[in-house]
Amino acid sequence: MARLYHVPLSPFCRKVRLSLAEKKIEVELVEERYWEADPDFLRRNPASKVPVIRLDGKLLTESAAICEYIEETRPTPALMPDTPEARYEVRRLIGWFDDKFHHEVTANLLYERVNKKITGQGYPDSGNIKAGAKAIKYHIDYMAWLLDRRRWLAGDMMTLADFAAAAHLSALDYISDVDWNRQSVVKDWYAKIKSRPAFRSILADQVPGFRPPPHYTDLDF
Amino acid sequence: MARLYHVPLSPFCRKVRLSLAEKKIEVELVEERYWEADPDFLRRNPASKVPVIRLDGKLLTESAAICEYIEETRPTPALMPDTPEARYEVRRLIGWFDDKFHHEVTANLLYERVNKKITGQGYPDSGNIKAGAKAIKYHIDYMAWLLDRRRWLAGDMMTLADFAAAAHLSALDYISDVDWNRQSVVKDWYAKIKSRPAFRSILADQVPGFRPPPHYTDLDF
Repeated sequence: MARLYHVPLSPFCRKVRLSLAEKKIEVELVEERYWEADPDFLRRNPASKVPVIRLDGKLLTESAAICEYIEETRPTPALMPDTPEARYEVRRLIGWFDDKFHHEVTANLLYERVNKKITGQGYPDSGNIKAGAKAIKYHIDYMAWLLDRRRWLAGDMMTLADFAAAAHLSALDYISDVDWNRQSVVKDWYAKIKSRPAFRSILADQVPGFRPPPHYTDLDF
Repeated sequence: MARLYHVPLSPFCRKVRLSLAEKKIEVELVEERYWEADPDFLRRNPASKVPVIRLDGKLLTESAAICEYIEETRPTPALMPDTPEARYEVRRLIGWFDDKFHHEVTANLLYERVNKKITGQGYPDSGNIKAGAKAIKYHIDYMAWLLDRRRWLAGDMMTLADFAAAAHLSALDYISDVDWNRQSVVKDWYAKIKSRPAFRSILADQVPGFRPPPHYTDLDF
């Protein structure tokens, strides 16, 4: 069985978990306190970050590379479209969420509020929180712009781009940082993806010291 | 003809330029002062970053997605290997350089010394410079560890992973931040890649106010 070293609210780990679950690949989850730089963990991944997955007898790191590998070795159900143009759009959006959204939103909100506390780095910086709260509005509007034109973020099928976005938003939703009333088309998209069986394990996560809002697990939020 | 909006020392732009040149795709280079957020540029790329490329009648952004698109639409000469396992390793290393190396080294050295001055953001932070100078040693040692076992970074063929690494190192070499005497196997690898015709346009870059060291363009450095 596959084994995933992860932390529950990491959007990069959640993206991999969603991909595994959608493809019905059973996985054992192991929580990894990566910031403690345990020598065993560093041996598994010299980059000392999560996710790290043991799959097909190998240890794999870097969530984008892991998801492409899973897609190539387990192509059904497909999470990447057929044409180079459509695959480009999926990869562009994965880059958008895992780089731009991550730095502008996730780092400013989730890492300030949760990671700093868990890793003993002190209190949230209110300037960063404010920057993140401002930036997420712009990103939700950009998602709405896309979803006004397409069924899913990258086109007419659900892809890894939707999982990348949902991974970030679900982690931010756990700490009540997503205003679902801002754009109904984004809320509808999230309701669709949240109701998939692949989402169940993510919605069951509990982080000690942080209680999610009641709507977090509610499929009719 | 393709048109690339770029800045000369951006490692992400250099990676795309190397990929285009290796595949003999002619490209017109347009320098883009992305930090001035010109409305025309923002229309081309709402993420307001470079590279942006006009290719096949479309505007493409995000260097990783662009390189995969070029690879899928122009597969010869191949810059990605055949098997999912080998492709995983290429993508893992692209992630390593464009995320970890970028944040630990390129941002601390190149952005402090060059980008801050060009974009009018003041003086380099000596703490960041020190952190970058320390981190690059560890990364060069990691590259040596890989190259002791393989002809190229990701295996026995030259791939996008080599271009990702060479793009960062060449930009840092322009400002004399690479100690080529640290690991001879890394120097030998860079000499091989630097002597490719694809590297010529990169070595011809000039950034006003910054003069590269004499060895920068020397193939026998």
